[in-house]
Amino acid sequence: MHISEVETPAIVVDLDIMERNLGRVADYARERGLRLRPHTKTHKSVRLARRQLELGAAGLTVAKTGEAEAMLEAEPEDLLVAFPIVGRAKLERLMAVARRARVTVALDSIEVARPLSDAAQAARVEIGVLAETDVGLGRVGVPPGRPLMALAECIRMLHGLVFEGIAFYPGHIKNLDEAGQRAMGRLSELVGSICATFRSAGIEVKIVSGGSTPTLFHSHEIEGLNEIRPGTYVFNDMNTVRVGACRMEDCAAAILATVISKSVPGQIVIDGGSKTFSSDRLVNSSEESCGYIVEAPGARFHKMNEEHGFVDVTNAGREFEVGDRVRIVPNHICVAMNLHERVYGMRGEHVEEVWKVDARGKVQ
Amino acid sequence: MHISEVETPAIVVDLDIMERNLGRVADYARERGLRLRPHTKTHKSVRLARRQLELGAAGLTVAKTGEAEAMLEAEPEDLLVAFPIVGRAKLERLMAVARRARVTVALDSIEVARPLSDAAQAARVEIGVLAETDVGLGRVGVPPGRPLMALAECIRMLHGLVFEGIAFYPGHIKNLDEAGQRAMGRLSELVGSICATFRSAGIEVKIVSGGSTPTLFHSHEIEGLNEIRPGTYVFNDMNTVRVGACRMEDCAAAILATVISKSVPGQIVIDGGSKTFSSDRLVNSSEESCGYIVEAPGARFHKMNEEHGFVDVTNAGREFEVGDRVRIVPNHICVAMNLHERVYGMRGEHVEEVWKVDARGKVQ
Repeated sequence: MHISEVETPAIVVDLDIMERNLGRVADYARERGLRLRPHTKTHKSVRLARRQLELGAAGLTVAKTGEAEAMLEAEPEDLLVAFPIVGRAKLERLMAVARRARVTVALDSIEVARPLSDAAQAARVEIGVLAETDVGLGRVGVPPGRPLMALAECIRMLHGLVFEGIAFYPGHIKNLDEAGQRAMGRLSELVGSICATFRSAGIEVKIVSGGSTPTLFHSHEIEGLNEIRPGTYVFNDMNTVRVGACRMEDCAAAILATVISKSVPGQIVIDGGSKTFSSDRLVNSSEESCGYIVEAPGARFHKMNEEHGFVDVTNAGREFEVGDRVRIVPNHICVAMNLHERVYGMRGEHVEEVWKVDARGKVQ
Repeated sequence: MHISEVETPAIVVDLDIMERNLGRVADYARERGLRLRPHTKTHKSVRLARRQLELGAAGLTVAKTGEAEAMLEAEPEDLLVAFPIVGRAKLERLMAVARRARVTVALDSIEVARPLSDAAQAARVEIGVLAETDVGLGRVGVPPGRPLMALAECIRMLHGLVFEGIAFYPGHIKNLDEAGQRAMGRLSELVGSICATFRSAGIEVKIVSGGSTPTLFHSHEIEGLNEIRPGTYVFNDMNTVRVGACRMEDCAAAILATVISKSVPGQIVIDGGSKTFSSDRLVNSSEESCGYIVEAPGARFHKMNEEHGFVDVTNAGREFEVGDRVRIVPNHICVAMNLHERVYGMRGEHVEEVWKVDARGKVQ
C-alpha cells in the first residue's frame, strides 16, 4: 500500500528512523552495562515489545495491570509494573499475570505492599518489589533516608514479596541545561548515598531503576544506577526534541492528516484535533503549538477542537488545497498513540507493516 | 455490583441524572418545535443513541465515517455527518452506510461536494447535504452571503446530492453573559437574513441546523433555526457548568479513581491522569483544574501525568488514605469518554448496567 492510500488521520511511522532509535538505546544500554527494561506505554504494541526484547531488553515496563496483561503476548521473562497496584480485583488479575511471567511492582507504601503480599501468598507466586523513592518530582515515592529504609525493611518482612531494589523517576529535570546538569550531579550523589545506606544496613539492592527522557543518555552518570526503562525513544516527539534528548530527524512517528477546509483566509483545517493528537501541550514552552508540520514548518498548528485542527498558513510558504495531506509530529506521542487503533509502518512511501496498538486504552 | 467493586479508573454515570438530562432536552425540542438530531460524540454509545431516538430524536449526528458505521447499530432513520468527508476510501465506506440509513453531510466546499456527488452516483444512493456557513467561529464554513449562495447553487447542480439546508456552529459564543446575549441577537439576525436570502432566490431551505452547548436552551430564539444537534447535555461536565448551561447537580458522569499514594505531605495521587481524563483544560478560565472532586470540593486536582493525578488536599477538609476512592467530574466528558472502553451506569451505589463505548477512538 502506498501512503496515499492510508486513510486519515493515522499514525505513520518511519521504520528506518524507528529501527535506528531502537538500536541506539539498545547499544547505549549494552555499552554502559545498564539493564534495559523499556516502558511499553509509548508504543503499546506487542510487536514492538518483541523487537525490544530481541535487541537485548531484559524485560518490559508497564504502568497498568491491563498493560501487563496485553504485554504477556510478547513473552517477556520479566515485567515491571511501575505503578502501585491497589484494589482486590486488580491484584487478582496481576497474580494471573505473575503465573506467566516474573512480575515486579514499584510501590511506595505499606498500604500497597500488604495487600500485594496477601495476594501473592494466596496465589502462591512471588512478586518482586522495588521501593519507590522521590528524588525531586514530588509525585510518588517516599523520601530517601529513613522512610525509604523503613519501606524496604517492611517489604523484606512481607511473605510472597522479594525486595529487589529501588525505583525513581527524576521528572523534575526538564532538560540538561546548566541548571539541569547541576540537578543531575545532585541526583547522582543522592542515589549513590542511598545505595551506600543500604550497603551499611546489609541490605542487598539488586536493582536501581531510574532515568527519564531528558536524562536518558546520561543515565550511566548516575552513581549506582543499573537499570533504565525509557519509553519515548522508540518514536520521539516534539517534547523529546524540546528537552534536547533527540534531533528533529530522530522523530519516527507522525500523524498523517488531510486538509478538509480552507474557507477561512490564511487558515487550513485538518481532519484531526484533540481526539487524534491529544490536547497535551508542548513542555517547557508557552508556545501554543499542537505539533510540527513536516511539509510546511512555517505553518502554525495552533488550536484544536476534538476533530478539527486549526493551522495558520500565513507563513507556510506554500499553498494548500482541500484533500492535501500533511504529516505532523505530535507534541507527545505516548498519549497520541493511545488514541489510535493501529499504526502504519512506512518504508519510504510504502506501508511495510500495519500493527495494532494492543494496550491502547488500558486504563485499569 | 456495588460501586466499591468497580475497578478504577472508570467512568460512572448517575442514571437518574442522565435520564433527567435526556428528558429535559427532548422536552425542550418538542415544545419549541425543533428537530433534535443529537451529536453522539459525547456518549459514543449505541445504547444511549437508541434512548435518544426513543425519546423523539429525529436522527443522530456524528463527526466521522467510523462513528456513522458504529451508530448504524442504533438503527437511526437519519444520520448527519457534521464533517466534510474527504478521501476515496472514506467515501466508499460512507456510501455503504448510506445504503442502510439516510445520510446527510455538512460541507463547505465544492472540492468536498464533487467527489461526494461522484461517490453517490456510483453507489446509486442519494446524499443529503447541508451547506456549512461560518457565523463567527472561524473554523469551517463559507461566509454567509454570496459564498454561501454559490455553495448551495453548486450543491443543487450536483447529481446524487440533495441540498437540504444550512448548518452552522456558533462556537464563538462562550456563554450568555451580556456580551454573549448580544452575540446571540446578532446570530439570530444573521440566520434570519440568510433564510430570507434563500427565500428571495426561491431556494427551499428545509433544515437550518445549529446551536452549541452554551446556547442550547436559547436555540428557539435564533430566527429560522429548526434543528439542534447537542451532544454534551446527556452527561454535562465542568465546562458545561462553567459556560452556564447546567448546574453542578446536572453532571451525570464522573471518573471513579483510587488514591494510590500520599507520600508527599498535603497531596494525594490518584490512579488517573491524562490517559483517563484527557488533558483538556477548563474553558473560559485560567484556573489549573483537571476536574471537580465530588467528595472533597476543596481539594485541588491541579496537575496530571499520563497515569497520575496530583491532588492538593491542603484545603480538602478531610483526610485521605491509600485505597480511598473519589469521583471526579471531568472538564470535558466527550474526550474523556473516548479514552474508556466501558461505562458503569449507577442507580445510587449499585451498577444497574454496563455499556460499551462503541464508537470510541473512531478517528477515521
